[in-house]
Amino acid sequence: MSRKFNFSAGPAALPEEVLAQARDEMLDWHGTGLSIMEMSHRSDEYVSVAQQAEQDLRDLMAIPNNYKVLFLQGGATSQFSMVPLNLLRGKTSADFINTGVWSKKAIAEAKRYCNVNIAASTEANNFSSAPTQQELTLSSEAAYVHYTPNETIGGVEFDYVPETNGVPLVADMSSNILSRPIDVSKFGLIYAGAQKNIGPAGLTVVIVRDDLLGETLPGTPTMFDYAVHAAADSMNNTPPTFGWYLAGLIFQWLKRQGGVEAISAMNQRKAEKLYAAIDASEFYANPVAIANRSWMNIPFTLADAALDKVFIQEADQAGLLNLQGHRSVGGMRASIYNAVPEAAVDALTEFMAHFEKTRG
Amino acid sequence: MSRKFNFSAGPAALPEEVLAQARDEMLDWHGTGLSIMEMSHRSDEYVSVAQQAEQDLRDLMAIPNNYKVLFLQGGATSQFSMVPLNLLRGKTSADFINTGVWSKKAIAEAKRYCNVNIAASTEANNFSSAPTQQELTLSSEAAYVHYTPNETIGGVEFDYVPETNGVPLVADMSSNILSRPIDVSKFGLIYAGAQKNIGPAGLTVVIVRDDLLGETLPGTPTMFDYAVHAAADSMNNTPPTFGWYLAGLIFQWLKRQGGVEAISAMNQRKAEKLYAAIDASEFYANPVAIANRSWMNIPFTLADAALDKVFIQEADQAGLLNLQGHRSVGGMRASIYNAVPEAAVDALTEFMAHFEKTRG
Repeated sequence: MSRKFNFSAGPAALPEEVLAQARDEMLDWHGTGLSIMEMSHRSDEYVSVAQQAEQDLRDLMAIPNNYKVLFLQGGATSQFSMVPLNLLRGKTSADFINTGVWSKKAIAEAKRYCNVNIAASTEANNFSSAPTQQELTLSSEAAYVHYTPNETIGGVEFDYVPETNGVPLVADMSSNILSRPIDVSKFGLIYAGAQKNIGPAGLTVVIVRDDLLGETLPGTPTMFDYAVHAAADSMNNTPPTFGWYLAGLIFQWLKRQGGVEAISAMNQRKAEKLYAAIDASEFYANPVAIANRSWMNIPFTLADAALDKVFIQEADQAGLLNLQGHRSVGGMRASIYNAVPEAAVDALTEFMAHFEKTRG
Repeated sequence: MSRKFNFSAGPAALPEEVLAQARDEMLDWHGTGLSIMEMSHRSDEYVSVAQQAEQDLRDLMAIPNNYKVLFLQGGATSQFSMVPLNLLRGKTSADFINTGVWSKKAIAEAKRYCNVNIAASTEANNFSSAPTQQELTLSSEAAYVHYTPNETIGGVEFDYVPETNGVPLVADMSSNILSRPIDVSKFGLIYAGAQKNIGPAGLTVVIVRDDLLGETLPGTPTMFDYAVHAAADSMNNTPPTFGWYLAGLIFQWLKRQGGVEAISAMNQRKAEKLYAAIDASEFYANPVAIANRSWMNIPFTLADAALDKVFIQEADQAGLLNLQGHRSVGGMRASIYNAVPEAAVDALTEFMAHFEKTRG
């Protein structure tokens, strides 16, 4: 076995010691004679795993008691519908900040349920920055304000939390949850697909202030009603038990790393190293405004796009995988989530310097 | 490590050799240096895994080419909404056959979207049988006819496929898919939560005739539109990649067992042994009409319910796990899905005989 460095945008790298633990207990979880996957979600053993995962996430993010934590299915894409279906609550419009591909997807789906006001858009500068607080045109009539704190494809990350003057703030944190400390109390609802910083694909975490629950649009499928899941501790039906279990292992791993503060310092260091390598070179470039450069997803281009394929091939041979940019934008992208070790970034910057010298 | 016999109704027993394979390749799938969980769903490697799983399922069930096979999230419970949202197609009513707990859940959700005609109900006999074809009152105006071929809690299984005279037939096969041969062409849509005969929880398989796609009720969430998933080969968004992979391993395992015909013979033998043990005793009883006794879920009671707890305890000590009946009905239930070996049934019947002799 030879593990490689994985820069995939998602599903993404997982901590090796978590994978090893899952492997070691795959056929016999804690002496029960069963795999965790073979257990009823209502068994005492499984419920304790599920509850511990929730508690660990609450600890890591300092989630206040008046927030529910839900472990759901369907990915962030399902949240694009669930959020308006649950949070309009008699209102007819919502404010959206448009900072790229994922914002636009959320907007397109919300438009099917309400009037969407674009509070700000950076499309004119090709989504190379986030708008400032002063650039936001917010409405006090909006049911909520939706934004994407980190755009996975564009590599644009907000350097502040928007102030919405009491209107519930909703964030798609799929690609930067748990990467740095945030103040949950500033949000009405946070959602995240698990397959970047939480665990395997097929699990979605929703953190929602409890006063926002209980009023859905007519015709909302029962499985799209947050209140139903909240009342059932996310076991209205069979949850994705293996993903929830693995998320729990990752939360424990994160605690062993020192929690979100500690991983945040490491993430900052990793990102700074990679941006420094890009900026020090005439050969590599990143288009994002300095203040909004993502710590998680770092797109970069080569001075000669004809070399893209060679770069990918030689990086692969060097054990640096999945550096191709998103199919919609091309170029390169290094996703350096929590589970990507600093050694991976060091190996990448070394490779980049070598490639520039030999091919640039 | 000591593996035990697992009679859980779901999440349920998985084949030991499949778990061992998943364990062995957990940190390094086929020499890639990555876990299958860490791979982009759009990578060549993962797409080949996903496509092979679909092809193997098509082979196993002889699924005609004009049917789409979808790998979704949300469980059968999400299908309770998705079916009416997609299949009403301008009509205002659907026929439902009510044979127990799961039928009733499907009915309750469908009532939110259309008029539900109860084509037959066995509630009067406490759901201890399935209605005959002659007992069905079907309407030619119905958008579809929905039934539950196997009731997981009641242990009632249809011994025929209803004839609906051209009205699309919809089946919740969560607990008996792949347990015996069926003629897919008789169905408009088949759905199944994976966590009984397909794989881990968090994956839902839908098999749908392609002419039924493309017309949803207004307001249907995009993720609840079968046509969207069909057009994207179930990758409209990130699918539950590990569950899909594991389902593929199980389909290959099933092929190695000789396919559905072979497993069906084994399932029949397992069920007949257990029913024979129940029927030969004055101490154990199963309430279901002979013709409708499930091959997958076998509920039984003890002559003295005060002994239920002791039975469970001593069975546990004998390595026979999860025999307690569903919390809504009590008593015992042995779920003997494809992955439960015949040796488990032999051990159970021996234990039952011993328990009756010493405690009965």
